[in-house]
Amino acid sequence: MKTLNLGLLGLGTVGGGVATIVGNNGFDIDIRSGMNIRVKKALVRESDKVQACAEFEKIFVETITTDVEDILNDPDIDIVVEVMGGIDLARQYVTRALNSGKHVVTANKDLLAVHGAELFALAAEKGLDLGFEASVGGGIPIIAAIQQNLAANRIESVLGIINGTTNYILSEMTSQRRDFQDVLAEAQQLGFAEADPTSDVGGLDAARKLAILSSLAFNCPVALEDVYVEGITRITSEDIAYAAELNCVIKLLAIANRAPSVDGLPEGVAVKVHPTLIPVGHPLASVDGVFNAVYVVGDAVGETMFYGRGAGSMPTGSAIVADIVQIARRMATSSTGKMFPQYYHDTPVLPLDEQKTGFYIRLKVIDEPRVFATLALFFAEADISFASIIQKPRRNNRAEVVFITHPCLEAQMRKALTALESYPKLEKIYNLIRIENH
Amino acid sequence: MKTLNLGLLGLGTVGGGVATIVGNNGFDIDIRSGMNIRVKKALVRESDKVQACAEFEKIFVETITTDVEDILNDPDIDIVVEVMGGIDLARQYVTRALNSGKHVVTANKDLLAVHGAELFALAAEKGLDLGFEASVGGGIPIIAAIQQNLAANRIESVLGIINGTTNYILSEMTSQRRDFQDVLAEAQQLGFAEADPTSDVGGLDAARKLAILSSLAFNCPVALEDVYVEGITRITSEDIAYAAELNCVIKLLAIANRAPSVDGLPEGVAVKVHPTLIPVGHPLASVDGVFNAVYVVGDAVGETMFYGRGAGSMPTGSAIVADIVQIARRMATSSTGKMFPQYYHDTPVLPLDEQKTGFYIRLKVIDEPRVFATLALFFAEADISFASIIQKPRRNNRAEVVFITHPCLEAQMRKALTALESYPKLEKIYNLIRIENH
Repeated sequence: MKTLNLGLLGLGTVGGGVATIVGNNGFDIDIRSGMNIRVKKALVRESDKVQACAEFEKIFVETITTDVEDILNDPDIDIVVEVMGGIDLARQYVTRALNSGKHVVTANKDLLAVHGAELFALAAEKGLDLGFEASVGGGIPIIAAIQQNLAANRIESVLGIINGTTNYILSEMTSQRRDFQDVLAEAQQLGFAEADPTSDVGGLDAARKLAILSSLAFNCPVALEDVYVEGITRITSEDIAYAAELNCVIKLLAIANRAPSVDGLPEGVAVKVHPTLIPVGHPLASVDGVFNAVYVVGDAVGETMFYGRGAGSMPTGSAIVADIVQIARRMATSSTGKMFPQYYHDTPVLPLDEQKTGFYIRLKVIDEPRVFATLALFFAEADISFASIIQKPRRNNRAEVVFITHPCLEAQMRKALTALESYPKLEKIYNLIRIENH
Repeated sequence: MKTLNLGLLGLGTVGGGVATIVGNNGFDIDIRSGMNIRVKKALVRESDKVQACAEFEKIFVETITTDVEDILNDPDIDIVVEVMGGIDLARQYVTRALNSGKHVVTANKDLLAVHGAELFALAAEKGLDLGFEASVGGGIPIIAAIQQNLAANRIESVLGIINGTTNYILSEMTSQRRDFQDVLAEAQQLGFAEADPTSDVGGLDAARKLAILSSLAFNCPVALEDVYVEGITRITSEDIAYAAELNCVIKLLAIANRAPSVDGLPEGVAVKVHPTLIPVGHPLASVDGVFNAVYVVGDAVGETMFYGRGAGSMPTGSAIVADIVQIARRMATSSTGKMFPQYYHDTPVLPLDEQKTGFYIRLKVIDEPRVFATLALFFAEADISFASIIQKPRRNNRAEVVFITHPCLEAQMRKALTALESYPKLEKIYNLIRIENH
């Protein structure tokens, strides 16, 4: 059996997972791939060297290096596994690896969301594979699902819970009736949230993953800037309680939908990340804690869902090693470098204003005669109709009202909001949350 | 773009789905596969010919044939799609197709559960692909998941809801509090159950699929006869109500578990299909109606679940066309015939007696002093302890008791049952249902 040499760029959480899996399951992995897969070199920072040597002592003490040239310049290394994170340096190393004829497997969604097109083109030009299953959904094989297993389908929509931190926070807020700040602090203590949680709770992490997923689903390039992003920081336990009354839960969803052509305009796609009300019976509604899931609707297959751990050393390592096994099998038949065709449709991303959705809108108004009628009129003037309304008992002459609208254009809602905001009897718009009934 | 010619053996529900998908999504499928995929011939029975010609008029009236030689003897046909069902004739045609150098894609679980090993060996010998994604779980890409996407893992367990008929019946019995016979009759009317539902409600259909799945998961051949099978015909609405009291639902699960080695014996696998109590919080518990789902636990990836429509024209067609696209891509690089290695472990299937599980057991006894103590003693003598007990108010001097046991060997339970059955104060064992807490 021929040896396949890996060079790991990074030996932290994910790199350690890869090394552990190759160590633990080597017997099976070698048979499945047809090659003897081993970690030949692993790059660590100088400051992490002693620690890394101690942790992985039995596996490969002599493989640890602090010099990236030991990997990029070693002609025996077949696959470079990029698990260092970050963008600029990772891009530089991945580019060099491809230029020196090495296949690359990466878990780096930040890198791909920004420089994916360029790197895929380079890999194709060089006849090399660039595996990225681990970049979205941790151990969930969602890239393979969309790109290969559902290849018979025109994909209609992708709805994902693809950020574990925010899903943990929302799940805890829901089941324990706790507040956002309180749960966030706990999540940071437990290691489920970063010290700087901005990119998670702000939705950016999910948006990067959605840019990757939606590009594959619709076979048209979707840039990070195309994705509308709204995080979960404004969600309160009151909103969650109202959602429960409406038989819904609130999840941070990454949504990519086809929107049919209207008025002779070509069809487009809507791509957005925002807190969303979904019915409790929806398969995504019971995906709790740090679990991820992606719900994909195809014209032939119908509704499908892929569920699992979206992060962590071993789950992400599982996805990386699956890519390595595939590349090994293609190396044996000299069939690498034939990645699935990606961008051959030119479907435009719709501006937010042209996207349709239902809304939950929670308001505080002065409780006087005619106020409710006036509110209703503002919506009516924007052609927005209601699916349901909740009005709570007044306190201090103030009423709290929740409107649930039928689907309307974002532009219509903006019109209604502009009118509402200038209405003196309106004291506060607590929140505006979109609804998904797919 | 080169043409890839399909020969369909059958143009019923699934064959029609394949033809429709190739017709509808041809533009994308051709780009994704790199070949111009078309149905060259489709075999129908003489009696179905007129009907088929009418239904598929636009797509390929001249392609319909009633002579299988038009497909098997046509050197231009690259892939034979076996969607005729049945075992003996299908085996003969698939064997002939492989022998004449044609790749095969099949949805036929009955065929593979019985003759899979022989057909896979023939395909390998001839350097051909034999795709079978559609044989389990309809449109759910569970074969690819277990064989390829989770290739980094030692798979610990596979729990599947893989029969839509029984899941529909149990879901209706649960949500509508209806009886088995009543729901079965309705399911037959709606087309969710066959006129002869024996192989579905008796568990055989799920057992065939489990034989395929567990062979792949453990890389050891699992024969249909190895699978312990019990259907859902004895499940009553009373059992479902008790399950609800215990915060559980009852599902027909196909279960493949690794059992660790005990007392120096080698480790084994348990493979079985039976009605099962699972906690309402389990991801499988909310898989209702005709949907299927397979829950897979791997040592690296942890818990995953794959959910979707387990049957039907278009979902099953989606899986078949995905196989066709993969074969087309491998044809382009001359890398066909390199299927994933299957049977290289020799893990024994454990006899039922050596398998461990928790039990729900519902009894009717004469309500007299000492009776309960005696019942408890029978279990104690078999070393079985209880997780919980429900006793309902007596009627006519009879008590109904439900015991929930901690996991014990099936042999222990058999010992307790033998003792119980000879106990004159016991009037009836209503039911014995296994419990899964994985």
